[in-house]
Amino acid sequence: MGNLNDTIAAISTAIGEAGIAIVRMSGEDSINIIDKIFVSVSGKNMADAENRKFLYGHICDGDKKIDEVLVVKMKGPHSYTAEDIVEIHCHGGVVSVKRILNLILSNGARLAEKGEFTKRGFLNGRIDLTQAEAVIDMIKAKTDISFDLGLNQLSGALSEVLNKLRDELISMQALIVANIDFPDEDIEDAAYHDLMDRSEKILNKMDNLLENSKNSRLLRDGINTVILGKPNVGKSSLLNGLLKYERAIVTDIAGTTRDVIEDYINLDGVLLKISDTAGIRETDDEVEKIGVNIAREKLKDADLVIAIFDISREFDQNDKEILKLIENKKHIIILNKDDLEQKISDEEIEKYFKDDYLRLSVMKNESIKKVEKLILDLFFDGELQISSDTVLSNIRHINALREARKELLEVKESLNKKVFLDLIEVDLENVIAHISEITGTITTEDILDRVFSDFCIGK
Amino acid sequence: MGNLNDTIAAISTAIGEAGIAIVRMSGEDSINIIDKIFVSVSGKNMADAENRKFLYGHICDGDKKIDEVLVVKMKGPHSYTAEDIVEIHCHGGVVSVKRILNLILSNGARLAEKGEFTKRGFLNGRIDLTQAEAVIDMIKAKTDISFDLGLNQLSGALSEVLNKLRDELISMQALIVANIDFPDEDIEDAAYHDLMDRSEKILNKMDNLLENSKNSRLLRDGINTVILGKPNVGKSSLLNGLLKYERAIVTDIAGTTRDVIEDYINLDGVLLKISDTAGIRETDDEVEKIGVNIAREKLKDADLVIAIFDISREFDQNDKEILKLIENKKHIIILNKDDLEQKISDEEIEKYFKDDYLRLSVMKNESIKKVEKLILDLFFDGELQISSDTVLSNIRHINALREARKELLEVKESLNKKVFLDLIEVDLENVIAHISEITGTITTEDILDRVFSDFCIGK
Repeated sequence: MGNLNDTIAAISTAIGEAGIAIVRMSGEDSINIIDKIFVSVSGKNMADAENRKFLYGHICDGDKKIDEVLVVKMKGPHSYTAEDIVEIHCHGGVVSVKRILNLILSNGARLAEKGEFTKRGFLNGRIDLTQAEAVIDMIKAKTDISFDLGLNQLSGALSEVLNKLRDELISMQALIVANIDFPDEDIEDAAYHDLMDRSEKILNKMDNLLENSKNSRLLRDGINTVILGKPNVGKSSLLNGLLKYERAIVTDIAGTTRDVIEDYINLDGVLLKISDTAGIRETDDEVEKIGVNIAREKLKDADLVIAIFDISREFDQNDKEILKLIENKKHIIILNKDDLEQKISDEEIEKYFKDDYLRLSVMKNESIKKVEKLILDLFFDGELQISSDTVLSNIRHINALREARKELLEVKESLNKKVFLDLIEVDLENVIAHISEITGTITTEDILDRVFSDFCIGK
Repeated sequence: MGNLNDTIAAISTAIGEAGIAIVRMSGEDSINIIDKIFVSVSGKNMADAENRKFLYGHICDGDKKIDEVLVVKMKGPHSYTAEDIVEIHCHGGVVSVKRILNLILSNGARLAEKGEFTKRGFLNGRIDLTQAEAVIDMIKAKTDISFDLGLNQLSGALSEVLNKLRDELISMQALIVANIDFPDEDIEDAAYHDLMDRSEKILNKMDNLLENSKNSRLLRDGINTVILGKPNVGKSSLLNGLLKYERAIVTDIAGTTRDVIEDYINLDGVLLKISDTAGIRETDDEVEKIGVNIAREKLKDADLVIAIFDISREFDQNDKEILKLIENKKHIIILNKDDLEQKISDEEIEKYFKDDYLRLSVMKNESIKKVEKLILDLFFDGELQISSDTVLSNIRHINALREARKELLEVKESLNKKVFLDLIEVDLENVIAHISEITGTITTEDILDRVFSDFCIGK
């Protein structure tokens, strides 16, 4: 982990040909550094400049003008990092940001690590860990719903719920400590009873949180979707149909265009994450064979399988294998090429698919609508909304809460068996630790590394 | 052209997963609109906010929070567009900018056209046309030198030179007008003489500008380079060597990664623009044949041809054809595979290449250095610097100046032939018009459309 005393710098906007770009610094030397390289038109330097107010001028390397810029400082602790921040607003494109960043680095700042601005906000106590994670969730969000999950988490709503849980656990702990040295059996019995009650209630809350988290994780990260079918059944056409359906103002997303191995499809708020789309496209040229092992491997992490069958061809061994593969998976079955002559018999359809299919042609727009509706039904009972303000959507949070729940169950059992309270207290301490891990009250280098390695540089 | 009275809005940063993004508005309704959708934490609205100072709060659609943002206004006429500007600094990524932009649009702004912010700066008289063009040059610049050309042009240095030329032409015009109705022959003779003198001087200045513009155009736009050679001579290896040589902090440039049909290689400040790099890579798998017609077509617009020959193979008909093709082009000849056994005879090398070649292996790093040095020698007499502060690098400017020069030459000839001054005055008016076209003193819808269609939306 980089030293907190360093002044860090990075390009904070996406890189590309655009009107404006921002290079920013954070740390105690930020204002010193900017005053070495910025010449304002008014003659004012940044040390004397008004907080949060733009100054216009030039970034200069000695006599040489580097770019025409607007500069603003945000004095700590009321800043994103809780340190002094300086933002330089320069011309977009690649040259200006690169030159300004280089100049800043050669004047004593060092390049920020991934997420280091946000990490400092956390380490300096301005936000907790769930709020820090919300920031990158919002940046990476591909649907309104996933963005809203982040925005809500950033507001501290989740932290509030978790802190309340933690307070309740701590008050259980206090009760235990108070009774450990109390020899009176009646009082001890009452204490066991009270503690049982309390752990029951907390367990209920945890269960609710975990139950609600199921769909919110899918909404946040997308429904991991595999499209399955023997060659030439229309997998590629379905994919193209889904992609075309996506109505985004912004389609040119940097970072998702290179080496595409995943496609995100936003179906009116439900995000499908379709892996190996290149593979889907290629298989249409392949020989008529399906690699069952490969398919099984793909299905392992899938939340949803869309299996396509071609009714204009015979129902064959490949199709049967596919049906077997998807048996225990959430799936949508599409009987495709409805507009062609039917070669698969009605009896076969009845026998193999029952009522569990959509019969359509994926080339038609309304077909995609049907697929979308079925996904909504499958995952969200037809209604797409976040049930409350306090949902866990982050897999790290969910796992930690699961651990906490597991340990609390053990506490409850121990209470039932009237295990010595001082032993129970140790287990309870673990429950609290797991909750504290989520908000970052307790944290490790390892957790921080994992959290912030997901960030982009410059945030 | 969009109505100047509209309030326009656009995303002004590049789109991608990044820390910060900016949505901005310009126009008289900007502040009204922001006050409908922005709720500051301090309770202050933007109408009352201090100019150029950030307010912290939330963009809200009714009761629904859209994002946590910083907002700043820049009151016209002291702003980029000379109108009221409002900037909203929100979370990077795609969702927030899209939502905020949509909300602004539904509150009465319209989406800005390409370059419309800058165009307004021009139409409102804050900058001239060369300065507006400098902005997009800087954004699109891929080398320090091309950025500096833009920065210098933005400062108004070029405008100054051109305005001086124009003033001199106008004072010639005044002299003509003063003499048209003057019947005294002696005075008229003196006037012709004076006018000849003046046009001579102005022509010299124009010639200097045009002479200096040759290299600056190459520095600005890159040297249009074609790599030529029969299959398997090492074209692809040379390309990879050149690409690897490029030392950029920033390699992930949005917009240049998709559908790559051109590669830009920054050789320490000299930009090579290599077209059809996919083609180069593919030809290595082709049959041993070179399509002469295709090659000839490619060479038409080339500033430089790098022709590669393989000395470990016989010198054949293909090679001879390539030599013929590049005869009248600036070229670099590489005798490649120096590390393998030589199959081409010394006599052949002497006969076909004289001294005009680099003998090396493109697999070696130092080879690339040699290629670079040769390019510097070929185009910039070995020294890479902009000769003065006032260079024309934009092809539009160069063409307009060429036209002006051509007409002024005619004026001079007419003066020599003592054509009636009132006829000359008409020609001179044309010269002035061409100069005015450059700075935009005189402009047409057509010129504006061409200039600003090169821009990105949001600038």
